[in-house]
Amino acid sequence: MTTKLSDLVFDLPSLARAYAEGLDPVAVVDEAYDRLEAWNDPGIFISLVDREAARKAARALGPTPDGRPLWGVPFAIKDSIDFKGLPTTAACPDFAYEPERHAPSVARTLAAGAIAIGKLNLDQFATGLVGVRTPYAVPRNTVDPAFVPGGSSSGSAVAVGAGVLPFTLGTDTAGSGRVPAGLNNIVGLKPTVGLTPTVGVVYSVRFVDGVTVFATTVDDAYEVLAAIGGLDPADGFSRDMAVPKLGPLQPVTRVAIPDATSRRFGGSAAAEAAFDATIEDVRRLGGETVEIDLESYFAVARMLYEGSFVASRYHQIRDFIEASPEALHPVTRGIIEGARKFSAADAYGDMYRLTELRRTLGAVWSGVDCMLVPTYPRAHTVEAVLADPIALNSELGAYTNFVNLLDYCALAVPGRPRTDGVPAGVTLIGPAGADGLLASLGAAIHAAGATPIGATGRTPPKPAERPAAAGPGEIEIAVVG
Amino acid sequence: MTTKLSDLVFDLPSLARAYAEGLDPVAVVDEAYDRLEAWNDPGIFISLVDREAARKAARALGPTPDGRPLWGVPFAIKDSIDFKGLPTTAACPDFAYEPERHAPSVARTLAAGAIAIGKLNLDQFATGLVGVRTPYAVPRNTVDPAFVPGGSSSGSAVAVGAGVLPFTLGTDTAGSGRVPAGLNNIVGLKPTVGLTPTVGVVYSVRFVDGVTVFATTVDDAYEVLAAIGGLDPADGFSRDMAVPKLGPLQPVTRVAIPDATSRRFGGSAAAEAAFDATIEDVRRLGGETVEIDLESYFAVARMLYEGSFVASRYHQIRDFIEASPEALHPVTRGIIEGARKFSAADAYGDMYRLTELRRTLGAVWSGVDCMLVPTYPRAHTVEAVLADPIALNSELGAYTNFVNLLDYCALAVPGRPRTDGVPAGVTLIGPAGADGLLASLGAAIHAAGATPIGATGRTPPKPAERPAAAGPGEIEIAVVG
Repeated sequence: MTTKLSDLVFDLPSLARAYAEGLDPVAVVDEAYDRLEAWNDPGIFISLVDREAARKAARALGPTPDGRPLWGVPFAIKDSIDFKGLPTTAACPDFAYEPERHAPSVARTLAAGAIAIGKLNLDQFATGLVGVRTPYAVPRNTVDPAFVPGGSSSGSAVAVGAGVLPFTLGTDTAGSGRVPAGLNNIVGLKPTVGLTPTVGVVYSVRFVDGVTVFATTVDDAYEVLAAIGGLDPADGFSRDMAVPKLGPLQPVTRVAIPDATSRRFGGSAAAEAAFDATIEDVRRLGGETVEIDLESYFAVARMLYEGSFVASRYHQIRDFIEASPEALHPVTRGIIEGARKFSAADAYGDMYRLTELRRTLGAVWSGVDCMLVPTYPRAHTVEAVLADPIALNSELGAYTNFVNLLDYCALAVPGRPRTDGVPAGVTLIGPAGADGLLASLGAAIHAAGATPIGATGRTPPKPAERPAAAGPGEIEIAVVG
Repeated sequence: MTTKLSDLVFDLPSLARAYAEGLDPVAVVDEAYDRLEAWNDPGIFISLVDREAARKAARALGPTPDGRPLWGVPFAIKDSIDFKGLPTTAACPDFAYEPERHAPSVARTLAAGAIAIGKLNLDQFATGLVGVRTPYAVPRNTVDPAFVPGGSSSGSAVAVGAGVLPFTLGTDTAGSGRVPAGLNNIVGLKPTVGLTPTVGVVYSVRFVDGVTVFATTVDDAYEVLAAIGGLDPADGFSRDMAVPKLGPLQPVTRVAIPDATSRRFGGSAAAEAAFDATIEDVRRLGGETVEIDLESYFAVARMLYEGSFVASRYHQIRDFIEASPEALHPVTRGIIEGARKFSAADAYGDMYRLTELRRTLGAVWSGVDCMLVPTYPRAHTVEAVLADPIALNSELGAYTNFVNLLDYCALAVPGRPRTDGVPAGVTLIGPAGADGLLASLGAAIHAAGATPIGATGRTPPKPAERPAAAGPGEIEIAVVG
């Protein structure tokens, strides 16, 4: 051992090197718990795996990885995803249940050799982008505790931003896998809809929900995706598609960016300047930028909370919310109960409108390979969000809400930092199957921006050398019903 | 001219031969109108193209087909599909509107050289399988007028069964393109969902609606499909898929048939015996039959009318039915108003259940190439249906209602005739993209059964010789959102 454990960088290559040099996974598990204690934020976890049980799991891995890509890597799970052995609460204690089995996304992560240490806090029922809609302590933003941690995968982002874990699992329906990544200056990978299995998840809007990955680097996030993605034949919402291979950055990438009328920064000049600086990076990296009007996308985004789709959330917890409405966080309850006013005819109308919009707006992909947008217009403080819980939450979703509804994939990475140190980031968006393309460009943007990762003090590495692989247009894709 | 016009067989090969010998399309148009008059059924058409205008359209085709596969072929259109120049009524006079343009399915048929002569009667708002739910005269069954014509595409089937037209366009959501074909001993082709464009159709359950073809032979129906199928980029519900090429019958086809518990004939021994005789034909044609339990499929069928999907019909005519409920047929009104009791949460729940069932039940296709079922359990008389309008309609849909919901294609053909002369038929069902496989087997079943076609006195021809083509597994299929 040439590195002190407390100095060990918690990313996949560093862990792999340390393991190759003889480090014991039990020591890494201990180090994760020690870092969590040292960080001293009671809001991150809702429940923890008993430390001795986690050590035992590490020992049970056997002496060598044997091809398991996440061998010995500690991780944790958003508490709306089932992990057998701990309750699933969805951040609503009265709703909690003991799952009979791991969600397939968790089972695959464990099968890849990772070691679970607990269940992470979230905006209750994964409804929110702020991270403060929880009856538990609010996780502290790892860049500046005055700001919200972001949600709904608040604990998932903070655990990584704090350097406690190399990666975590979250979910994303409206931006829950991206906004908290942006607010903690880490990476949030939201795969193509249906690419990660969603059985065993407390659903939000089931046909667009996805399990996502938070990590300190794009390459790490993608390696986790490669381990957990792909068809789950038992899941009607799973896509018959393999995780695209991650190839090198294309010499030229056609990148749509918001036109003048589509720029939303909530009046923050610092946020706007950081975004513009990232656009310059993208151009230096071979991006040919094309300005597009996002008004149609913003209209789709508004459908998510103003239309009948919220009834999907209501459907998931119908019996519970009818029996125990007072058990919900008041803001969450207000949102989900709003579903009662929508009829089945409204729902079919919204589904049909969305189906048409997918076709109409899909035409953009004949002209560009991906979009580059701010992850959110600007960061908000905890104080501001508590004072105005709906409007500021909505603002945070301006650039995320439309993505899943339109069947797109996305990747949130820190771009150029804001000069005032407030967390910010950019998100790449692509059509279904473009996950690999987003990752190769995203890794390059991350490296170019050099924003410190969360609270780790580290800056992003130069992306790994990668052999050429199939582009998204060449992937074998089957019909999804 | 070697054939008297009144003796000319109204199918595509006979017309093509006659045209090659110099027949004038104007004469064929006249012959169609003459046959309609001679048949003397006021229930078939809701509106007719002025005869002189149709003659003019025939003259405007020019002197030669120039590659147009339907050149000079008269046809007509279910009156829930837009044809510019005649109102679209959906069999509800107060609902009628003048469409500004042809539905793409109609425009493609016209572009292929066919000549429209009018709009055909239907069960109002395409809701029903009986053909008697119309404020217009009920079209007469062409095999035996005591029986219902079948619906909802009643006029479409009767016009072909009567020998008035070589083909017509219908629609199918729950069986409207199959049941009336069975009841008139003709062919009803219900393509893969989304393979025919549905813009300009008065929708029923939009995500599974399809424009269908009625014809006297499978080859004719397929030729029309080839002319009108394929991606409509302006239609969010259109599938990015080409019409599969029609190849020869496979030496061996694995065919699922209902097991003992799944046989439904409403007590008709004659219906059952005819179906069993057709199974024997299928075996002689190289079919390896496998009995399967259809209970899960029947459960899907029940969802169509007992679940929230009926709210999709309500959504389509919401403003109209709220303003003028008394304008509807009382049975239709009762069904569609039943949608009001369903909430948006019910709708999402049903969509999610259906998505899961598509995956679960889709496993059957790894073991068989297609299913063979009766088109309906048994035929019903007009008198019986008027006395019991809901239950007998439901019985007719037992083997059709589940098909579109599960994203399957289907083809209704007459099989072996019933010994009592009552109309009957069988339906082949396959996964999305199996249209070609169903057609090659269906044409062989049709020929083997030798049931006279409608009232034409003709028996089905031996299927045309076909060069080998790609099977459904080899078709290029893209993601449908």
